[in-house]
Amino acid sequence: MVKVSVVGATGYAGAELMRLLAAHKQVSIVHAASKSYAGRKLSDVYPSFSGGDIILDDMDFKKISADSDIVFTCLPHGASSAAAPELIRCGARVIDLSGDFRYRDADVYEAWYHMPHGARELLSQSVYGMPEIYRKRIAQAGLIGNPGCYTTCAILALYPLLKEGVIDAKGIVIDAKSGVSGAGRSEKLANAFCEVDESVKAYGVGTHRHTSEIEQELSYAAGETVVLSFTPHLVPIKRGIISTIYASPKTGVTESDIRDAYAMYEDEPFVKVYDDGALPEIKHVNGSNNLGVGFVLDKRAGRLVVVSCLDNLIKGAAGQAVQNMNIMCGFDEREGLSNTGWYL
Amino acid sequence: MVKVSVVGATGYAGAELMRLLAAHKQVSIVHAASKSYAGRKLSDVYPSFSGGDIILDDMDFKKISADSDIVFTCLPHGASSAAAPELIRCGARVIDLSGDFRYRDADVYEAWYHMPHGARELLSQSVYGMPEIYRKRIAQAGLIGNPGCYTTCAILALYPLLKEGVIDAKGIVIDAKSGVSGAGRSEKLANAFCEVDESVKAYGVGTHRHTSEIEQELSYAAGETVVLSFTPHLVPIKRGIISTIYASPKTGVTESDIRDAYAMYEDEPFVKVYDDGALPEIKHVNGSNNLGVGFVLDKRAGRLVVVSCLDNLIKGAAGQAVQNMNIMCGFDEREGLSNTGWYL
Amino acid sequence: MVKVSVVGATGYAGAELMRLLAAHKQVSIVHAASKSYAGRKLSDVYPSFSGGDIILDDMDFKKISADSDIVFTCLPHGASSAAAPELIRCGARVIDLSGDFRYRDADVYEAWYHMPHGARELLSQSVYGMPEIYRKRIAQAGLIGNPGCYTTCAILALYPLLKEGVIDAKGIVIDAKSGVSGAGRSEKLANAFCEVDESVKAYGVGTHRHTSEIEQELSYAAGETVVLSFTPHLVPIKRGIISTIYASPKTGVTESDIRDAYAMYEDEPFVKVYDDGALPEIKHVNGSNNLGVGFVLDKRAGRLVVVSCLDNLIKGAAGQAVQNMNIMCGFDEREGLSNTGWYL
Amino acid sequence: MVKVSVVGATGYAGAELMRLLAAHKQVSIVHAASKSYAGRKLSDVYPSFSGGDIILDDMDFKKISADSDIVFTCLPHGASSAAAPELIRCGARVIDLSGDFRYRDADVYEAWYHMPHGARELLSQSVYGMPEIYRKRIAQAGLIGNPGCYTTCAILALYPLLKEGVIDAKGIVIDAKSGVSGAGRSEKLANAFCEVDESVKAYGVGTHRHTSEIEQELSYAAGETVVLSFTPHLVPIKRGIISTIYASPKTGVTESDIRDAYAMYEDEPFVKVYDDGALPEIKHVNGSNNLGVGFVLDKRAGRLVVVSCLDNLIKGAAGQAVQNMNIMCGFDEREGLSNTGWYL
Repeated sequence: MVKVSVVGATGYAGAELMRLLAAHKQVSIVHAASKSYAGRKLSDVYPSFSGGDIILDDMDFKKISADSDIVFTCLPHGASSAAAPELIRCGARVIDLSGDFRYRDADVYEAWYHMPHGARELLSQSVYGMPEIYRKRIAQAGLIGNPGCYTTCAILALYPLLKEGVIDAKGIVIDAKSGVSGAGRSEKLANAFCEVDESVKAYGVGTHRHTSEIEQELSYAAGETVVLSFTPHLVPIKRGIISTIYASPKTGVTESDIRDAYAMYEDEPFVKVYDDGALPEIKHVNGSNNLGVGFVLDKRAGRLVVVSCLDNLIKGAAGQAVQNMNIMCGFDEREGLSNTGWYL
Repeated sequence: MVKVSVVGATGYAGAELMRLLAAHKQVSIVHAASKSYAGRKLSDVYPSFSGGDIILDDMDFKKISADSDIVFTCLPHGASSAAAPELIRCGARVIDLSGDFRYRDADVYEAWYHMPHGARELLSQSVYGMPEIYRKRIAQAGLIGNPGCYTTCAILALYPLLKEGVIDAKGIVIDAKSGVSGAGRSEKLANAFCEVDESVKAYGVGTHRHTSEIEQELSYAAGETVVLSFTPHLVPIKRGIISTIYASPKTGVTESDIRDAYAMYEDEPFVKVYDDGALPEIKHVNGSNNLGVGFVLDKRAGRLVVVSCLDNLIKGAAGQAVQNMNIMCGFDEREGLSNTGWYL
Repeated sequence: MVKVSVVGATGYAGAELMRLLAAHKQVSIVHAASKSYAGRKLSDVYPSFSGGDIILDDMDFKKISADSDIVFTCLPHGASSAAAPELIRCGARVIDLSGDFRYRDADVYEAWYHMPHGARELLSQSVYGMPEIYRKRIAQAGLIGNPGCYTTCAILALYPLLKEGVIDAKGIVIDAKSGVSGAGRSEKLANAFCEVDESVKAYGVGTHRHTSEIEQELSYAAGETVVLSFTPHLVPIKRGIISTIYASPKTGVTESDIRDAYAMYEDEPFVKVYDDGALPEIKHVNGSNNLGVGFVLDKRAGRLVVVSCLDNLIKGAAGQAVQNMNIMCGFDEREGLSNTGWYL
Repeated sequence: MVKVSVVGATGYAGAELMRLLAAHKQVSIVHAASKSYAGRKLSDVYPSFSGGDIILDDMDFKKISADSDIVFTCLPHGASSAAAPELIRCGARVIDLSGDFRYRDADVYEAWYHMPHGARELLSQSVYGMPEIYRKRIAQAGLIGNPGCYTTCAILALYPLLKEGVIDAKGIVIDAKSGVSGAGRSEKLANAFCEVDESVKAYGVGTHRHTSEIEQELSYAAGETVVLSFTPHLVPIKRGIISTIYASPKTGVTESDIRDAYAMYEDEPFVKVYDDGALPEIKHVNGSNNLGVGFVLDKRAGRLVVVSCLDNLIKGAAGQAVQNMNIMCGFDEREGLSNTGWYL
């Protein structure tokens, strides 16, 4: 049994990770640490953990690291880069769910996060935890920057198209709609039920941090600098992201060329490419680690429209973190993640 | 008192029209006709009409027209073009809420609606009922093609920008999200609560009929043929549409130029242009006849992002129909429509 | 024009009151005061107030009272009893939406609110603002304790039955389900979207304050002390309350007897008694000042089941306050409140 | 591997059963039959079954039974009693999710279901599939009447109290609130999103079929005939039931006595008795096979208020069916059902 710990176990992503790890056959959870609820039972904070008498620990990074093979950090950005150095020094491999270790270039991070990076020296060893792109490097990594939710949904939809050169790298538009859990478990008025229900809003237009993360990976795919428009929206659902992506197909590109580009996912356990103009919906993937992607080539308008969906707490956070762990530990990549989605 | 009738009073748009007309001080409702519920009380079908002893009539177009100054037709497309000729012949002015009389060119209608147009001869006299563009012609019209919900939301956001030439006419993307009432009151499985709730989906990608209506009006604004991408989405809310629109600003265009373009709405009673990067949300407009529009000029990505919102049953259907009626009858355009939105 | 002010205009009940007053033909709003947002525009806080350039005032009770005929106080309990004495002394008539002036007996208030009453001396002159019971006294009142939302829904359903003696005063059960706006506009985690959505919970079982208010009025109706079970529930909707009430019919009581008891509402503008086993639903009343009530006499089980519904922000708060104002000012009681509900 | 089949695999309960069985380590699914979708892929009907190439079969009962150890029938009532005799004759053990085999007395069934029972002769051998009560008989059974959703939620909350005699058998009130999936996957207008969303309604007051099923089992517990009031409500959530139950505690009964009664669940894997006045919420159990139950003894009002929650598709249908199968097959009762609930 691999010994794992979760630091920040009582946010939404942390709790989802606890839920997934509890069902994983090859790990044992040694610490679940929480700043706000240390000393209390996890089932007091989330009564859905009915079976558990898991007691939440303090954030004693030294002890947590020493006791663990793998530590998941589910902390706010900034807090992760403060915690990671000690966790790594004390021996554990770290999978970080914040934005802190997703960047190749600390300057980009600082420009978009508007704060100094707390552990620049670690960026060169951290691996961007997207198995479909970096599986081999993940296997060896000591520090994973687990990708963001919007970013996973957008990158996996676009990566093959840019890598295979079937679309222009310029002028891409990503219009994304997310459930409210993406904002975390917080008391902000903006996330109150009466403020969110029966409405939809755009936010962070042109400034959302995930833009830079998407651009980093898509530039890598394209072999040229990609600058794009990314607009997130808040919709009154708990979980799930749908991205509707608009790109210009290169001259002469056909449906078949696009399908060929997506063939790189043929053996991927969690990427489902839809056939023949069928498109994923959020309810097709919620509750699972799957990402669904489909497309329509609108010849009349000269546009390729790609739609991708994932569960922001699973493939967009905790599930992808478990997938990374499975790779790092040499487990079957599907272990603990093979369940069918909920639909309802 | 102007005598009005509603044909198709028990669909969602028809019932909303009945609600608005009931609060209008200068009209009396002489007939409310329903194919499915003739002979029953409106309050049996919609118990919210608690005060009413309105009995639903048969669809006797001759009698309805003879008794009415204005007839609103809230019928499926195809049914409206079948009903309108007789209604007009018998003397009433007609405001039609279907797509049947929104087109200048019957061929375009037939190409997008996949059916022959039933009253081609009337298209030359019908007026597209968007007061912000055609107010003067509406005042004189005998037949109004009341605009669609998605189309109103998109056209009013883009019309000034194309008319003033601050954006390219090419490459426009409209990503729209609508509440479920836009699909009408029907028993389709796709609109069942458990199928819609906690999910979002794109549909009609590249093929939705409203595309052609939007392109017709924006081509008129631009003075050149506009071909664009329009993608509707279904979100789990009852009412409201938000459109997120991506356009390429012409070289050198500034926020101030864009604001100047929107100045054409300065005296419009129902168009609210947001200041300084503020953006409308669906809950800002639901329950009112208002359309909100705001924008962000994303210089980094070279994109203008415009967001517009309306209540699909009011400014997107019944409210705009009442607004048209007010203009046709010489009433204050705000009569019956001046209420504040609900927010909650 | 009667001059009115709203103290606490930016909570949900206060904002709803502002919305209703804005549509009222016989009042002008002279002050809208807000502790949190003084100096800002109401439309900044609630962009649905699009037409308005209402600037929010400080809570200067002396000035507000001097300038106003009627002041509505939408403050937390405790705060109202602190504000009311000065408001009254300076000349205005006060309609208070908190629990502070709903009680005949300050000891009952203190026992259920767990705090001393701040203005015991005013209780003897305050009138419980339920027009269906106290219309005449309301007309003369200088201080109104505007009823609670749950309480209005329960009292109006049961008052006639107890007054006419068709049910036992003992053993009544009120199982109520409310939308989230009843909890006010606050940042509490318990009201966050992800905590409320797709769930239902009971709360305050046996201890909710509205129990005492319901018992006070029903004891008055019954002519004996009524002690009952009241259980509120939170459901994932914004507005509306439905109360399902279980009572024991007295021996020999028939449907007809029950209907006769409800005949006291025959001329009531806002109470809708349903026929023949039909039952109200929340969507029948939301958006209106109506209360719907229906019943089933379950002879097999020996139970009378009564169902009542209202919009907690209208008949359960702001609408009832306007109704009280209409009575106090000699207006038509329906002025500003006659609109049809939304259904959608 | 035990061979199982699902007849009626594409309704909501059937699909949920398919989802649970797919994750069960000790069974293989040999047939998934569907009247409406025979010949199509399950993943066409529910795209959440992404991994699957399960082809839906015709309803050939003879073949299905011959190939299977256990057949789950997820059919409308009436259809199950038509199918069961042949399924049983051909050798399979049957777990029926309809109401057809839940009754000891066919006359009761016929009185509440308003139709003749199609297989009266089988009732004497069918076992009511509630493991907490009938575990031993379930192990041996050839035909299980899998309990209803409302009924499981109510019976498990009340059974110990009546068995131990801590409450009166008379005067019990069960006020239940259910998600919409309980109504099945159908195209009824009453279940359309716009009809259900933002509203709550009571239905079937005094006449809901589950009343008779609850009374049957509680009469068994009490040793006397129990007649009670059961009122179901529809709330705008997909899954989950919460029952708020009002009973009269017998004289002198204390919290401790009630807790002692619930001690019968101490070793139950799926019944969670809450401590100290804590109460379950729907989100505590959704996604799991757990039933949560808590209580408040309201001494002031002389009432015991019990609150119980379950996921109507799991412990209220498919999960309980799997639990029954586990018992029938000698598996660990938790196999395939041990996951933590979703909370979000």
